[in-house]
Amino acid sequence: MLFLLWFKVKQPESITQKQLMDIWKREAEAALPAVKAGKIKGLYKVSGRREVVAIIDVNSHEELDEILETLPIIRELGHSVTVEVAAIHPYENFYELIKKLAQ
Amino acid sequence: MLFLLWFKVKQPESITQKQLMDIWKREAEAALPAVKAGKIKGLYKVSGRREVVAIIDVNSHEELDEILETLPIIRELGHSVTVEVAAIHPYENFYELIKKLAQ
Amino acid sequence: MLFLLWFKVKQPESITQKQLMDIWKREAEAALPAVKAGKIKGLYKVSGRREVVAIIDVNSHEELDEILETLPIIRELGHSVTVEVAAIHPYENFYELIKKLAQ
Amino acid sequence: MLFLLWFKVKQPESITQKQLMDIWKREAEAALPAVKAGKIKGLYKVSGRREVVAIIDVNSHEELDEILETLPIIRELGHSVTVEVAAIHPYENFYELIKKLAQ
Amino acid sequence: MLFLLWFKVKQPESITQKQLMDIWKREAEAALPAVKAGKIKGLYKVSGRREVVAIIDVNSHEELDEILETLPIIRELGHSVTVEVAAIHPYENFYELIKKLAQ
Amino acid sequence: MLFLLWFKVKQPESITQKQLMDIWKREAEAALPAVKAGKIKGLYKVSGRREVVAIIDVNSHEELDEILETLPIIRELGHSVTVEVAAIHPYENFYELIKKLAQ
Amino acid sequence: MLFLLWFKVKQPESITQKQLMDIWKREAEAALPAVKAGKIKGLYKVSGRREVVAIIDVNSHEELDEILETLPIIRELGHSVTVEVAAIHPYENFYELIKKLAQ
Amino acid sequence: MLFLLWFKVKQPESITQKQLMDIWKREAEAALPAVKAGKIKGLYKVSGRREVVAIIDVNSHEELDEILETLPIIRELGHSVTVEVAAIHPYENFYELIKKLAQ
Amino acid sequence: MLFLLWFKVKQPESITQKQLMDIWKREAEAALPAVKAGKIKGLYKVSGRREVVAIIDVNSHEELDEILETLPIIRELGHSVTVEVAAIHPYENFYELIKKLAQ
Amino acid sequence: MLFLLWFKVKQPESITQKQLMDIWKREAEAALPAVKAGKIKGLYKVSGRREVVAIIDVNSHEELDEILETLPIIRELGHSVTVEVAAIHPYENFYELIKKLAQ
Repeated sequence: MLFLLWFKVKQPESITQKQLMDIWKREAEAALPAVKAGKIKGLYKVSGRREVVAIIDVNSHEELDEILETLPIIRELGHSVTVEVAAIHPYENFYELIKKLAQ
Repeated sequence: MLFLLWFKVKQPESITQKQLMDIWKREAEAALPAVKAGKIKGLYKVSGRREVVAIIDVNSHEELDEILETLPIIRELGHSVTVEVAAIHPYENFYELIKKLAQ
Repeated sequence: MLFLLWFKVKQPESITQKQLMDIWKREAEAALPAVKAGKIKGLYKVSGRREVVAIIDVNSHEELDEILETLPIIRELGHSVTVEVAAIHPYENFYELIKKLAQ
Repeated sequence: MLFLLWFKVKQPESITQKQLMDIWKREAEAALPAVKAGKIKGLYKVSGRREVVAIIDVNSHEELDEILETLPIIRELGHSVTVEVAAIHPYENFYELIKKLAQ
Repeated sequence: MLFLLWFKVKQPESITQKQLMDIWKREAEAALPAVKAGKIKGLYKVSGRREVVAIIDVNSHEELDEILETLPIIRELGHSVTVEVAAIHPYENFYELIKKLAQ
Repeated sequence: MLFLLWFKVKQPESITQKQLMDIWKREAEAALPAVKAGKIKGLYKVSGRREVVAIIDVNSHEELDEILETLPIIRELGHSVTVEVAAIHPYENFYELIKKLAQ
Repeated sequence: MLFLLWFKVKQPESITQKQLMDIWKREAEAALPAVKAGKIKGLYKVSGRREVVAIIDVNSHEELDEILETLPIIRELGHSVTVEVAAIHPYENFYELIKKLAQ
Repeated sequence: MLFLLWFKVKQPESITQKQLMDIWKREAEAALPAVKAGKIKGLYKVSGRREVVAIIDVNSHEELDEILETLPIIRELGHSVTVEVAAIHPYENFYELIKKLAQ
Repeated sequence: MLFLLWFKVKQPESITQKQLMDIWKREAEAALPAVKAGKIKGLYKVSGRREVVAIIDVNSHEELDEILETLPIIRELGHSVTVEVAAIHPYENFYELIKKLAQ
Repeated sequence: MLFLLWFKVKQPESITQKQLMDIWKREAEAALPAVKAGKIKGLYKVSGRREVVAIIDVNSHEELDEILETLPIIRELGHSVTVEVAAIHPYENFYELIKKLAQ
């Protein structure tokens, strides 16, 4: 099942920009293989804001928490990241429902 | 260049659920071919909310407006749809920047 | 998989309190058997506000939309109901994850 | 009388993820027996967010405060937890009121 | 058990100020005897805003809904009144809890 | 003249729950005699939230500031308390105005 | 006693700009003599927004409501005006309190 | 040209109430002569909140910044003060515009 | 003196997209000559949203209102346009102030 | 392609006003040559608020991030600056679209 996750990263005062980017680099190095493996269906940086949008495929609501809490950016910077969560599904599946409701 | 568009549809009091779904059906029938043609890179229904998320590839900021104003759902229901817009780019491109900044 | 749905009903100016309660009565008569059948795990009225909280068990993100759009209150009053959606899971399952993370 | 409590946990910068989960583990070990004893009618983790929803049965408005202020997560992390509170009651009781109002 | 209710009245465009005050007059004539009878412990108009604050004593969460839905201003103007609800209790009772927690 | 004050207490990270309750105890011991003396017309704890509602009778807008800035909880914890202020008056006085406006 | 009132006027769809300005003209013709009489201590238009700020001297919290409900713009357009209210007092009076608190 | 400035002071945790009032006293001693000199047309304390409203006459948008950044409370407490800014003009001038628009 | 104006246009339900664009066309035909005349220093459409940003040079705070209330889009659609207003000045002028403050 | 960037600077408690202005001075000295070079099409200080508005011309969504992360104020004060981002285009280009839609 698919979820859209919107990460908002707030740099804490106690670390520098370079340190932030260092953590973010480890995060990216964990995330990019998951894109190739098909676990992450889409992964985008929001231009001009320290925010990332991910489309992720999970097996259960429990697995969603497990994946999030093991991300490098949450493990190291959990106090400074907020995540918005939306359950989603492919639009073509919704189209099947629309057709029934429009009858 | 990529944009994430988040459509929020508010049913006006003057139309029924069936009429809303009828307009939405025409919208879907315009959007789904654009997914196949590669113009729309991702298209999702938000479960439980009348909201749609699209990842779209446009040639210019002008074209973004042109596409939106010619969508069936905007043409017919423009008073009842709000759109949030975020300029985005692929995360792997951002990773190139991170690597420089982390040095 | 479980979802918490928080319904907020806004009476439109065009109907009376009695008409609102009449629609709501049909809604309740559709919902209460689903509580007994175990599909709805919890169903509560928020005191003093025209809001309802439901804990619902669905098979897919697609099914969540289908259930919502076939509720009497959405079919008849869809322009006046907003729904907040949260994916949830039993706390005892989360406890299993906590134990691993606290090690 | 029933209350829905929505806990939102914000990790302070001064503790690590492991320390947070350690406190949360003690919290869960206090809460789960109350579920079994019937004092807590429902207890759920919100997937992807550090939030918990509880349906709790209390004897008085005073007891609600007493329970909250003695929870391990409030005692140890009271500066970093916010609680939203909604008085609720079973939907079947509300149905009795609806029937009268719809007449 | 005590609740604080904060009513916010929004005049609909379809009625005049005089009509609004006429409904409000009936509301007041229903509410003021309840103040004398001790059911309403405090009842105040917010100066400069069309808002009312009530401290009310109810027997159950169900009764709170019943009282609200039978108020003249809700029966006649339910689409234009919002109510904020807070469960409260006398401060001297909270003082008893404070003393224990401060030890 | 009457004011409704809504205090919201946010525990700072630098103090423990016990220290917070110790300050709050001093606050209560200053406030409760003012209830008996009739200066404070109503004083309530909001259940489940660290918030207090007071109905206070002051002689001037200047006195309101003086009273607030000499409260123990403001003197010791002024950085962590927010106060919402509403000028109010008894509902029976407002009823006199309603009657004129409804004519 | 002084109050700052911040009026925000929202033109309803049912009237034209000319009609709005006609009502506003009557409002101004009622308000400007009160400025000369010293009842209104300050009266300003917010540039670029349909908002007005007034500093008004009233005898009681009851009188504040009476004045507002008899303003032409509230009588004729009460559904489309919101008012924010702040109790204020001259800064030099506050300076007397500051001096005591700073000792 | 006139501006309304609304200062909101948030006491930082690192200073006491007495220290805050000491800074505020210096601020008042700089501001009150400007009231007498006619530069500040109105200056009010918001009762019950640590907020100040000023009506100020400046020669340019540049001068507004210069005045603000040289105030004692901004120089010493700039991290803890927020300022809301509204360009305003006398209501009698707006009345001249209304008369034209109402024709 | 310069102001940044941010117009947000909300299509009313009573007009079609074509009618909205017709009004907007008249608006543009009034605004574009003012760009050439140097009165408007910058004029931009926000991509994907029905919003316009203008940098405008006015002689007084009174003139700002006069210009706005004579715009075609305000005259014809004043109930459906909101305007956010910010007084601004060229950054190089601010740089002169910064240099003094940084000494 | 054009973007409007709205920078909001929040002074951290750990630096003085003078230190803030010193960083801001370096920022300005980096930005002003970019104005002359035509990369920045407009650059304004918001009067009375520590905010800056920039109209910037970039080659790609990737370049927008690169420019922002290399600004002195982001490099040194990234934890205390928020940036709002809006994709924009010249109003005359939008006029071409309006003409088509109004037909």
